[in-house]
Amino acid sequence: MTYCLGIKTRTGLVLASDSRTNAGLDQVNTCRKMHTLVQPGERVFVLLTSGGLALGQSVLTILGEQCDAGKGLAQAATLYEAARCVGDAVRHVEGLDRAALERDKIPFNLHIILGGQVRGSAPDLYLIYPQGNPLHVTEESPFLQVGEIKYGRPILDRGIRYEETTLEEAAKYALLSLDSTMRSNMTVAPPIDLLLYRDGDLAIRQHCRFLADDPQLAGIRNHWEQELRRAIQALPPVRFSATPSSP
Amino acid sequence: MTYCLGIKTRTGLVLASDSRTNAGLDQVNTCRKMHTLVQPGERVFVLLTSGGLALGQSVLTILGEQCDAGKGLAQAATLYEAARCVGDAVRHVEGLDRAALERDKIPFNLHIILGGQVRGSAPDLYLIYPQGNPLHVTEESPFLQVGEIKYGRPILDRGIRYEETTLEEAAKYALLSLDSTMRSNMTVAPPIDLLLYRDGDLAIRQHCRFLADDPQLAGIRNHWEQELRRAIQALPPVRFSATPSSP
Repeated sequence: MTYCLGIKTRTGLVLASDSRTNAGLDQVNTCRKMHTLVQPGERVFVLLTSGGLALGQSVLTILGEQCDAGKGLAQAATLYEAARCVGDAVRHVEGLDRAALERDKIPFNLHIILGGQVRGSAPDLYLIYPQGNPLHVTEESPFLQVGEIKYGRPILDRGIRYEETTLEEAAKYALLSLDSTMRSNMTVAPPIDLLLYRDGDLAIRQHCRFLADDPQLAGIRNHWEQELRRAIQALPPVRFSATPSSP
Repeated sequence: MTYCLGIKTRTGLVLASDSRTNAGLDQVNTCRKMHTLVQPGERVFVLLTSGGLALGQSVLTILGEQCDAGKGLAQAATLYEAARCVGDAVRHVEGLDRAALERDKIPFNLHIILGGQVRGSAPDLYLIYPQGNPLHVTEESPFLQVGEIKYGRPILDRGIRYEETTLEEAAKYALLSLDSTMRSNMTVAPPIDLLLYRDGDLAIRQHCRFLADDPQLAGIRNHWEQELRRAIQALPPVRFSATPSSP
């Protein structure tokens, strides 16, 4: 399993991913799921992959080769065009591998979050489906998730607002959303990659990687649990019926 | 779908359930999932049901008839014995209905949370599986959930401690856990039943039911989102690498 998410606010993007890959419970490995393609000052792309590891690798290889040849993502004028490039690569790999996978009852499963910016257009965030079509993030629900999405969603739903949330706050939400998921699903695990992209950077300036025993991650987790308990205490008590009602 | 949960702390129990039932998306209804069997001063049982509505109704009918005849739950000396009674009723219904269901590819699906107290023994909390065997709550993870359990779990994991959490706090956690779930899954919906049982009550004294437009529920939700944002701001900022690292 995997958990990756991207957040878009008025001032930029935050992207985060775990690093656990597994085929069954007895074949567990660590693999980075955050990948970047950067032409400093010109374009930044961050890809988060969820699904078949071999499939994601093939897509990344194709996109990298195209870039090196000055094509594909190297030519995209907007994030929408970039999302279409990624979708085309997904469809290409689907053509190569799907029939062989399905013969053995393995679904063609690959979801990719693409965030970034091309000079002259705004930062943006897409989810590319296994079918290759791109979903655009919305201001009403300004985040996208792939993989084990349920545990980490309520904190995003409750807290993130496109206009108001700062990127520094969004980074905290992303980290806590991942931490909540790791706590409940052992197939989501560190290292965690966390990247903050500010509108206009056109380079990777703020990235960090948290290992399992990272003291900063442990500190944030402990601090958060204390804050959460304080917040619960600050809520007004539930008013139960004065006369007992029977359920 | 359904979401029900039970919490056990040092001083008692909190139980909560939604009321949405559906067969597909176009057949949606409201149905109470919290059921009580009470002999005041002697024994209190609260059952939360998740799964086939018809199956849960049959189990409740059987348990009620046994009780009226002074048998089953009316004779159980502990919550463990009560959980075994519930499991026996589940197995009885399984014998009646499973073959017919499976002929039409419908699984025999019924999970029941049982909380309560019998005079002379401590309050307790069990989950009865579709196979009829009972799972006991633990002090390390002092809550049990059935149905759509993922969205509402992180807040319980982070906040609830068997020894320290008060019942009033546990009621807030239960309500927020349900509210988080309703927000993300439309097959979990009000009215919400919330019941607080204090050790030794041997009666239902604190129960309430929140409709969709309940002002108390809306107030708690809004207050909680404010508290959450304040808590995020109180967290120390994530320290990114001074020198940009490439993912």
